[in-house]
Amino acid sequence: MAGKLGIVAGGGDLPRMLIDACRASNRDFHVFALEGQADAATVEGVPHDWFRLGAAGSALKRAQDLAVRDVVLAGSVKRPSFASLRPDWKTLQFLMRIGAKGLGDDGLLRRIVEAMEAEGLTVVGVDTVLDNLKPTAGVLGRHRPDEVAAEDIERGRAVLRAMSAADIGQAVVVQQGMVLGVEAIEGTDALIDRCGGLRRDGPGGVLVKLPKQGQEKRTDLPTIGPDTVARATAAGLRGIAVAAGATIIVRREDVVQAADAAGLFLVAVETG
Amino acid sequence: MAGKLGIVAGGGDLPRMLIDACRASNRDFHVFALEGQADAATVEGVPHDWFRLGAAGSALKRAQDLAVRDVVLAGSVKRPSFASLRPDWKTLQFLMRIGAKGLGDDGLLRRIVEAMEAEGLTVVGVDTVLDNLKPTAGVLGRHRPDEVAAEDIERGRAVLRAMSAADIGQAVVVQQGMVLGVEAIEGTDALIDRCGGLRRDGPGGVLVKLPKQGQEKRTDLPTIGPDTVARATAAGLRGIAVAAGATIIVRREDVVQAADAAGLFLVAVETG
Repeated sequence: MAGKLGIVAGGGDLPRMLIDACRASNRDFHVFALEGQADAATVEGVPHDWFRLGAAGSALKRAQDLAVRDVVLAGSVKRPSFASLRPDWKTLQFLMRIGAKGLGDDGLLRRIVEAMEAEGLTVVGVDTVLDNLKPTAGVLGRHRPDEVAAEDIERGRAVLRAMSAADIGQAVVVQQGMVLGVEAIEGTDALIDRCGGLRRDGPGGVLVKLPKQGQEKRTDLPTIGPDTVARATAAGLRGIAVAAGATIIVRREDVVQAADAAGLFLVAVETG
Repeated sequence: MAGKLGIVAGGGDLPRMLIDACRASNRDFHVFALEGQADAATVEGVPHDWFRLGAAGSALKRAQDLAVRDVVLAGSVKRPSFASLRPDWKTLQFLMRIGAKGLGDDGLLRRIVEAMEAEGLTVVGVDTVLDNLKPTAGVLGRHRPDEVAAEDIERGRAVLRAMSAADIGQAVVVQQGMVLGVEAIEGTDALIDRCGGLRRDGPGGVLVKLPKQGQEKRTDLPTIGPDTVARATAAGLRGIAVAAGATIIVRREDVVQAADAAGLFLVAVETG
């Protein structure tokens, strides 16, 4: 029997899916909802506490008091500035230990995971709780990339490979070999939206979203959902490429259905 | 006596500055104004032809007929899609030779330069015509970066270094160690504008704009002007870092004056 699960909840559908999965399997859980990030509806009627990112220290203490053993980090998190963080003592110690060097997305997450495990918690990936989240290699829906799109996917992969070292974003939009946009802190949704205004005539672009090389795989895996498909369609993209075995597809049936209806291809590529 | 100069004119102030410099020094010139890119006012009353990017072949022929010897590429150029290019025969040959692989910004420019030189033209940098465009290392105005800003500049440099291999953009905005945005095809102006909406509380961010490693230095050097300062101010940035000896500062006096008035620092850093 799996122990009590702590669900650290950011924005989006994923935290709710985890809650539903715990209920369906009669697993004990407690939600730690991030202020300003998680939706209020997500935690309605379930055991939960709200906490600030800066008050991670007290959330950790609370998790220990509740005998939480495994923790899953789920949902999107907008990063605040240090100026607005107002860290509690434990969080401050953590920040001082990592220093300004550890500020890349993945670097920071990796250290958060280390810090939680040092306190006796086990950080697990969402896919240990939810089945069928990660695609296997191949085309997922009815449509497939043509030759131009296949080249755009290759160019996108090369760009993300080069960017990996800088530890910034996970996504890029490529159209006819041109890089329309690169993701940084704005997130994939905003990237897609602005690339709608940057598109050129002719065959539309492709969203390529892949984990960084050597990325911490239990947290912050690239995630897409029905909304990603809707935005991609609105932005005139022709398809989406993700990493086989290393992408979370939230509500996959809806995603595939929406892509099929919109004429978008959806492909999971092998990554080295 | 320098031979007749061909000025290939994109958008912005730079083409006009070259025209004025040629007039001041009694140098013969002819402007090749790029349709949809150069301002009509730029070429008013000066010898010029308009041409499409796709009709580069006939522009080249025209340059030879006019006994143009040196050519300078100046001003911003928005890249069209291949679908809208409608290449003439010579341009098509050129595109087929470079293939889809040569589609990075710098890769493409390098090949354009090679193609022009193969036709007997000499491609020169704008700084061979205009003096005092490139800053030497150091602080240019009245304000200087503090420690947080200096770290943001370092982070920006590291990000651009990593991105160099992908041959995409030249600029990045960093605030308190967080990469707010990375430039791709949208250009620096659009990057700055959107980072205004992404800024976090506390000390504002820094625009870092540097040439790619090994970049073709006669064309497409990173360029800033008074408008860059105005946008940076509006976006809540605290300063701008450029590369010493490898940046074009258009209307430098105006740039420094605007930065001083807005409280922005302007620093030229040594690049390896």
